[in-house]
Amino acid sequence: MANIKLKEISTRAPKDWNKEETKENLASILAKLNELQNLLYAESQHAILVILQGMDASGKDGVVRKVFTSMNPQGVRVHSFKVPTAEEFSHDFLWRIHGVAPPKGIIQLFNRSHYEDVLVTRVHKLIDEKTVKKRMKAINDFEQLLQEHNNTRILKFYLHISPEEQQERLQERIHDPTKQWKYNERDFEEAKLWDDYMAAYEDCFEYCNDVPWTIVPADQNWYKEHVIAEALLKTLQKLDMQYPGLKKG
Amino acid sequence: MANIKLKEISTRAPKDWNKEETKENLASILAKLNELQNLLYAESQHAILVILQGMDASGKDGVVRKVFTSMNPQGVRVHSFKVPTAEEFSHDFLWRIHGVAPPKGIIQLFNRSHYEDVLVTRVHKLIDEKTVKKRMKAINDFEQLLQEHNNTRILKFYLHISPEEQQERLQERIHDPTKQWKYNERDFEEAKLWDDYMAAYEDCFEYCNDVPWTIVPADQNWYKEHVIAEALLKTLQKLDMQYPGLKKG
Repeated sequence: MANIKLKEISTRAPKDWNKEETKENLASILAKLNELQNLLYAESQHAILVILQGMDASGKDGVVRKVFTSMNPQGVRVHSFKVPTAEEFSHDFLWRIHGVAPPKGIIQLFNRSHYEDVLVTRVHKLIDEKTVKKRMKAINDFEQLLQEHNNTRILKFYLHISPEEQQERLQERIHDPTKQWKYNERDFEEAKLWDDYMAAYEDCFEYCNDVPWTIVPADQNWYKEHVIAEALLKTLQKLDMQYPGLKKG
Repeated sequence: MANIKLKEISTRAPKDWNKEETKENLASILAKLNELQNLLYAESQHAILVILQGMDASGKDGVVRKVFTSMNPQGVRVHSFKVPTAEEFSHDFLWRIHGVAPPKGIIQLFNRSHYEDVLVTRVHKLIDEKTVKKRMKAINDFEQLLQEHNNTRILKFYLHISPEEQQERLQERIHDPTKQWKYNERDFEEAKLWDDYMAAYEDCFEYCNDVPWTIVPADQNWYKEHVIAEALLKTLQKLDMQYPGLKKG
């Protein structure tokens, strides 16, 4: 994904895409996902890691609710990464990530991830550019470790919204009583750094693409959910799993 | 450390080395270590990881007792790696290692380590040679992560004993009532695989030497303890640490 320019990529579904059909299709995808997740758990030969990144209000929580809620929670885990604690901060930046990496049989969803350590920290100049490069190398090595040494399939999604859509959603948080709990004054300050964040994301897509990124047009929730659910389904289908037979004992 | 042959390296102290002087010297090294460990803890800018590897009865527990017991246990941690549990086994091989990597301010001792995953597993052909190479690459990446992203200094020691010395010590475990708890019938079986283990270690020294190994002649405990304590002291002295001043509040 060399020299990608997020500005040139649409944040909306393709024009001829049918919303109602897509919603129906999603329901059938989720049913299949449910079955395959059960098989993944029973077989316990592969791990799945889904990484969700995106600006504030890009709809990460919505993906968790709409795509992952339908699966058996025994085999699905969600971890939201916040500002590091003092203990986490006294370790290398991948320590807290590795601790919650998925064991075999599990689908693990990261709501934000180790990429924050080359995004928010970089935009606010808490780390220098040399450290950014070193961290990106370490991230590539780490993702390779999970893939090669624990049969982990990693899916990385960037929820791509327009700055206008973001402003609208942030405003909505102020006025919608069911969304006010999400309101954070600081989000408007962060939004002003939009171009810096886009540049930092573009670098992630270029330098940390050994495990490829998917840029998901995310202004419309129904389209975003469909793209992610379908990608997950295809990944699980490719694993060619089988229910284990009776153990001899 | 290309093409090292363990057979060609002495397992004993240099001939003119004075035992009594060395023991006195060790006491003074341990006193200095105690001070510097306190400073490391107070400053909390660096982490220290000491990796101990060696055949059964090579004296790893003795190093823990003689070199590390004199330091403040608040800042010194020891982790002995055993056969992986079912939970550990459902993750990549470095997951359990990363979990106990040292935070800043701490000296962490690994009694055995991630190297077992390219030693015992390799000798018993539980993994193929392609996996060995991949794991060695992952180990190098991982050690680099700890070094570059958490200011960790890593010291790797191989306790080098002769097969004759090993047999003597294993026999002693049968006859000495204070050592019988360490006796394990299986150790004699493992000892028969001596040459395979040496070849596997030699490959570690060659392919995982970005963080360099120290081969410690270990037939005599007094010499072994001195080598390790001195190496640790030099590492701490080089950090050029300072007690933090009063925090402004």
